[in-house]
Amino acid sequence: MPPRQPRTGVRRTLPPDGRIRAVIEAITPQVDHGRFAVKRIAGDRVEVEADCFTDGHDLVACRLRHRHENDKAWQETPMTALGNDRWHGDFVVTAPGRYRYTVVAWVDPMLSWRHDFDRRVDPDDIRVAARVGADLVTAAAERARGGDRKRLVEFARSLRETADIDVLHELVQDEQWAALVDRYPDRRLETACPVEFSLDVDRARAGFSSWYELFPRSTAHDTGGHGTFRDCEARVPYIAAMGFDVLYLPPIHPIGAVRRKGPNNTLSAGADDVGSPWAIGSAEGGHKALHPQLGTLADFRSLRDRAQTSGLELALDIAFQCAPDHPYVDAHPEWFRHRPDGSVQYAENPPKKYQDIYPFNFESDEWAALWEELHDVFAFWMGEGVRIFRVDNPHTKPFAFWEWVIARVKRDHPDVIFLAEAFTRPKVMHRLAKLGFTQSYTYFTWRNTRQELTEYFTELADGPGRDYFRPNCWPNTPDILPEILQVGGRAAFMARLVLAATLSGNYGIYGPAYELQEHLPREPGAEEYLDSEKYALRRWDLERADSLAPFIARVNAARRDHPALQRDGGLTFFPTDNDDLICYSRVNTVGDSVVLVVVNLDPRHTQSGWVSLDLAVLGVDPERPFQVHDLLSDARYVWSGVRNFVQLDPAHVPAHVFQVRRRVRSEHDFDYFL
Amino acid sequence: MPPRQPRTGVRRTLPPDGRIRAVIEAITPQVDHGRFAVKRIAGDRVEVEADCFTDGHDLVACRLRHRHENDKAWQETPMTALGNDRWHGDFVVTAPGRYRYTVVAWVDPMLSWRHDFDRRVDPDDIRVAARVGADLVTAAAERARGGDRKRLVEFARSLRETADIDVLHELVQDEQWAALVDRYPDRRLETACPVEFSLDVDRARAGFSSWYELFPRSTAHDTGGHGTFRDCEARVPYIAAMGFDVLYLPPIHPIGAVRRKGPNNTLSAGADDVGSPWAIGSAEGGHKALHPQLGTLADFRSLRDRAQTSGLELALDIAFQCAPDHPYVDAHPEWFRHRPDGSVQYAENPPKKYQDIYPFNFESDEWAALWEELHDVFAFWMGEGVRIFRVDNPHTKPFAFWEWVIARVKRDHPDVIFLAEAFTRPKVMHRLAKLGFTQSYTYFTWRNTRQELTEYFTELADGPGRDYFRPNCWPNTPDILPEILQVGGRAAFMARLVLAATLSGNYGIYGPAYELQEHLPREPGAEEYLDSEKYALRRWDLERADSLAPFIARVNAARRDHPALQRDGGLTFFPTDNDDLICYSRVNTVGDSVVLVVVNLDPRHTQSGWVSLDLAVLGVDPERPFQVHDLLSDARYVWSGVRNFVQLDPAHVPAHVFQVRRRVRSEHDFDYFL
Repeated sequence: MPPRQPRTGVRRTLPPDGRIRAVIEAITPQVDHGRFAVKRIAGDRVEVEADCFTDGHDLVACRLRHRHENDKAWQETPMTALGNDRWHGDFVVTAPGRYRYTVVAWVDPMLSWRHDFDRRVDPDDIRVAARVGADLVTAAAERARGGDRKRLVEFARSLRETADIDVLHELVQDEQWAALVDRYPDRRLETACPVEFSLDVDRARAGFSSWYELFPRSTAHDTGGHGTFRDCEARVPYIAAMGFDVLYLPPIHPIGAVRRKGPNNTLSAGADDVGSPWAIGSAEGGHKALHPQLGTLADFRSLRDRAQTSGLELALDIAFQCAPDHPYVDAHPEWFRHRPDGSVQYAENPPKKYQDIYPFNFESDEWAALWEELHDVFAFWMGEGVRIFRVDNPHTKPFAFWEWVIARVKRDHPDVIFLAEAFTRPKVMHRLAKLGFTQSYTYFTWRNTRQELTEYFTELADGPGRDYFRPNCWPNTPDILPEILQVGGRAAFMARLVLAATLSGNYGIYGPAYELQEHLPREPGAEEYLDSEKYALRRWDLERADSLAPFIARVNAARRDHPALQRDGGLTFFPTDNDDLICYSRVNTVGDSVVLVVVNLDPRHTQSGWVSLDLAVLGVDPERPFQVHDLLSDARYVWSGVRNFVQLDPAHVPAHVFQVRRRVRSEHDFDYFL
Repeated sequence: MPPRQPRTGVRRTLPPDGRIRAVIEAITPQVDHGRFAVKRIAGDRVEVEADCFTDGHDLVACRLRHRHENDKAWQETPMTALGNDRWHGDFVVTAPGRYRYTVVAWVDPMLSWRHDFDRRVDPDDIRVAARVGADLVTAAAERARGGDRKRLVEFARSLRETADIDVLHELVQDEQWAALVDRYPDRRLETACPVEFSLDVDRARAGFSSWYELFPRSTAHDTGGHGTFRDCEARVPYIAAMGFDVLYLPPIHPIGAVRRKGPNNTLSAGADDVGSPWAIGSAEGGHKALHPQLGTLADFRSLRDRAQTSGLELALDIAFQCAPDHPYVDAHPEWFRHRPDGSVQYAENPPKKYQDIYPFNFESDEWAALWEELHDVFAFWMGEGVRIFRVDNPHTKPFAFWEWVIARVKRDHPDVIFLAEAFTRPKVMHRLAKLGFTQSYTYFTWRNTRQELTEYFTELADGPGRDYFRPNCWPNTPDILPEILQVGGRAAFMARLVLAATLSGNYGIYGPAYELQEHLPREPGAEEYLDSEKYALRRWDLERADSLAPFIARVNAARRDHPALQRDGGLTFFPTDNDDLICYSRVNTVGDSVVLVVVNLDPRHTQSGWVSLDLAVLGVDPERPFQVHDLLSDARYVWSGVRNFVQLDPAHVPAHVFQVRRRVRSEHDFDYFL
């Protein structure tokens, strides 16, 4: 059932029923007045507030309604008054899917009558008021059944026939009678909010995931040559040991031979050059085929299963673009733009040309067939058990397409996760998140200073995006070797990893470039990797003594063990007296998992200083010392009060990830740390 | 035509045309997503902003559309990019009425082509691009007519046939060609914002008015006894001389005889007691009748005309409630609630009883007839030329009724002004303003300290109400003698008047109680006047030497002479080093009228201190002295720089209302103050 439409503009004709008097306004959460869905995770308690009131002195009753979109019937929960005409209600969502919620309110004569009755003093007035109440109770009895009806009839008679003022007051104040009557309110003049708000509930991994991206073709380091799914499968234990739970593969489809790019994105490829996996499609097939050099569908399935067994879920890259020799180009010329010289329009951003890539023409008259085919690409890989898609450059395809295809996929498969790889303008990124992308790449990659990080993560946590934009923070990608990693050495790789992994529920790295601290750009000033894996095979020495793999494993273990790090939100930044030290806490919703992070942002020098904590945020008694237990080094410190000293040497480890342990007195009268 | 309905919830079926790619979001101003109208004054420039963008690198074009609701055709004005995908457009509204506005945007291939063309470097590429452009221009030619079409055909041919790269670049960069082509954009795939926002434009007095309330029955001070419209007419020159422009009369209808209240709201009235004008209706008539002791309809018309001639517009009090002997009670028993003992339910807020007042039962089955009749009350007085209504306690009647009746009245009479007398909870007051009340009473009456005033007026200027809630500030009313006026003496009356008159475009006083500084409460702690005119006649000695009438005249003259004081907004508070001194400036939209106000909030002691101005706000050169000219005392001071000294003696005048005069060098090389 489509949501009911809100009415706009001021009414001039008589309304259907002018006796409806309750007003509902300012429902939160909501995204663009219900145009888009609010996002939550299965198991979350959804907290809803609304302004509800009426004219005059009468009291209103409010109910929060919610339902899974496949259910017809609403579930109702009472809302309670917060003061200033604001009401609060909540419900817990247990399973992924699309839900709806809204608010209803009505002027409740029974509540108003009871409220007024308690304040009456004149005995005659009280007796008349009791008869008014008796009529209301009689009406409630008519709405009730069985035993309730009988009891209500009896209560009405008592109200009508009792003359003793004290007894009447007792009757009206009796909570059991009140509860019984309130079970049968008169809701004929109820106001229903005309908007039914949408709520998308995702599975847990949508809010908490640790991604590892690698090129399967570079996994053949033992044998040399072109890596395969089998080689990649052999790499799974190594990745799992680092504690990741998503294994993300760049496109695994046949790579175009026509105008194939050479190493370092040069224009002409040699016979042995492997080309870019994002130049999808050749005579060997398109978006639903596998690159023959990677292996067969059986090999792919084997990799998928081995990953699954090791706690790693496969994520595929969906890049909706074609190499010149993609089968679509001949089969569906109507899906591409053609230039006056008869050639197919390649991708360009003048003066740059991407002649190995043909974009789809979404303004084609055959757009509907194109949309269906692109949906089928998702469907094909879902048929192969894939439930996570990292979508390449979604901001270069129409918003309406994404809204449609994501909704269509999630209708039957609400467990599917879409990550938007849109490094673009803020409003474009937000629009993609609003229309359905589960997670989004972020500007974290370029936020380095304390002020930049504080502002950006405060905006993510408190800004309008908090209800729909789920950050997935990457310190590097195959496209982006940020300057800090080019110049900052091993300490920068450690610091950036800790920041990504502790500021955000979702994060990822592109490896083994990351753990092996690959830091050479193609040329000075560029963010492209030298000898990028996008255009060439690489061999990585995973056994190098300086690999960050063990360090990454410790960080991921901290995330796995501490619920505070398994969500967004619950983030508080604390002042430090040294700009190179950033300090923040993460606390889970129940408040029993508290992690305190301090990072030295200067990769060159030891930095020290005083952090000023808000002990109430940490749940720590200001009168008692508390323990901070570093989950990276296993060191423990006893701190007390607001100001505490920190010193971090980048030559060693540039960060503390502290579990905050409160000091507790046991029954046996000694202290221990919780 | 009703506005188009916004779509809510995420789309799952194919849209009608998936090729539509432009997105429009976050249009401002708007009230509750277009549910209610934004308010402006005739002559205002309406500034509209929106986020408009599309996928990829293509450029969008945006237009702001507006129309009077009676017009079918939109007027379009181009919008210009502000950066960050935000666009701005504006239009001027000249006449009162209901308007609509919205935004349209489309991906403009011509703009994108031109943008890209300038960046191309490869000659072959440029020649092909020129042919692409020629096709676009040919298509534009097909949309054009006459000479334009011919010229476009010619331009297309030039693009197609020119081989010289430099000439091609010149052709594309030619601004005249560009302007011609852009006159015929391809808007087939245009996005129209699905919401048409409403805009209520009021006449100037809705935003700038000075009200004087008096009881006509107390105007017989020469003759004694019950005052009449004729007596009131004789009072007009006195009121006009103070510079007011609205003369507001409490209800002028027959006053109920049954359960009439005596002096000071006592329960039993004597034979000579005049009763409360708000206990409306008796055997002599109801809401469309005149109280016989005030005079005839001819007398009323004479008063109305005399007031008009003196620059005073009459405002009537509309109080939708009945005395027990109002003709409606017998004629329409279905419009009232009945108690089980057969009596009509009087107004009550237990334990308080208002037995002289019967409220209407808006939950009556006959609500529609009741609404029509109440509308007819407005219509009757509009027939008598009244265009301003002060509505008594609108918050005790249903919101839906007000929305309907105000819209119905304003459809044919957009010049009507409704002032909501709702001293109640914030969200209720805001709802009434949203649904159509032109002006609203405020909490100003109880805001006394610098902090209270600063916070409250900042909220009014910058909060969500800024687009629909027009404050009308009253330092007193017949119902409210605030504590500050009980204890603060003459200085408090002066200070409160200056604050009301300079913080708000609309303000009013209840006189002659105000200018004669009536300050005795009915009992200690009460806000009711002793011997309130609500229940008794009063005689006022207008000739008293201490009357504030001349002072009030000076304040109103300052308002009349200075556009900065003739609107809301343009308000900036400045720090002072003395909490008893409040300092703020008012600046009109063009910036050529600048008023600076300093008020001593302590009515007992001289206060002095330094104010810290923001000279940029005042439009003053920080390097040169400037003059402040006190419009109350005519004193002039030369100030310079940010910090300036002020001293105000409440025994004299507790406020400065400065015109800020900038120092200007004349052509004859001497300085003068503008």
